[in-house]
Amino acid sequence: PEWEVVDGERLQRSFAFRDFAGALAFVNLVGELAERRNHHPDISFGWGKATVTLTSHDAGGLTERDLALAEEIDHLPT
Amino acid sequence: PEWEVVDGERLQRSFAFRDFAGALAFVNLVGELAERRNHHPDISFGWGKATVTLTSHDAGGLTERDLALAEEIDHLPT
Repeated sequence: PEWEVVDGERLQRSFAFRDFAGALAFVNLVGELAERRNHHPDISFGWGKATVTLTSHDAGGLTERDLALAEEIDHLPT
Repeated sequence: PEWEVVDGERLQRSFAFRDFAGALAFVNLVGELAERRNHHPDISFGWGKATVTLTSHDAGGLTERDLALAEEIDHLPT
């Protein structure tokens, strides 16, 4: 599945993994990108799955920063 | 906030942190406990916050394994 716009203000994508450790490893990679850009998503994960939600709280919606981070996340290994 | 029972079948607790990195560090500690017990929660987190949800999917509800993991999580640094 690709990124979806939710409620017109959030960008969300789900990812599948082999197990819990695979999901957690991905979550840590997303965390590294987030810290580097100082732009922090909400992340939900569990056994074999993770969902990343991006928005720009200070702008009250989506901005270029969300799109840029989404594109970087798309290049992570899953 | 302490653990709450949700829908009679899940145990859920939210935790607060100083920032995104603090939440991610906690999430990794929970992940280590989960792997050691081979019992895996669902985790949601973002800037300054994390929520852990425990259930025993194979049993269709809460079991001793959830209570034991909850107690271990309570001893993690936050």
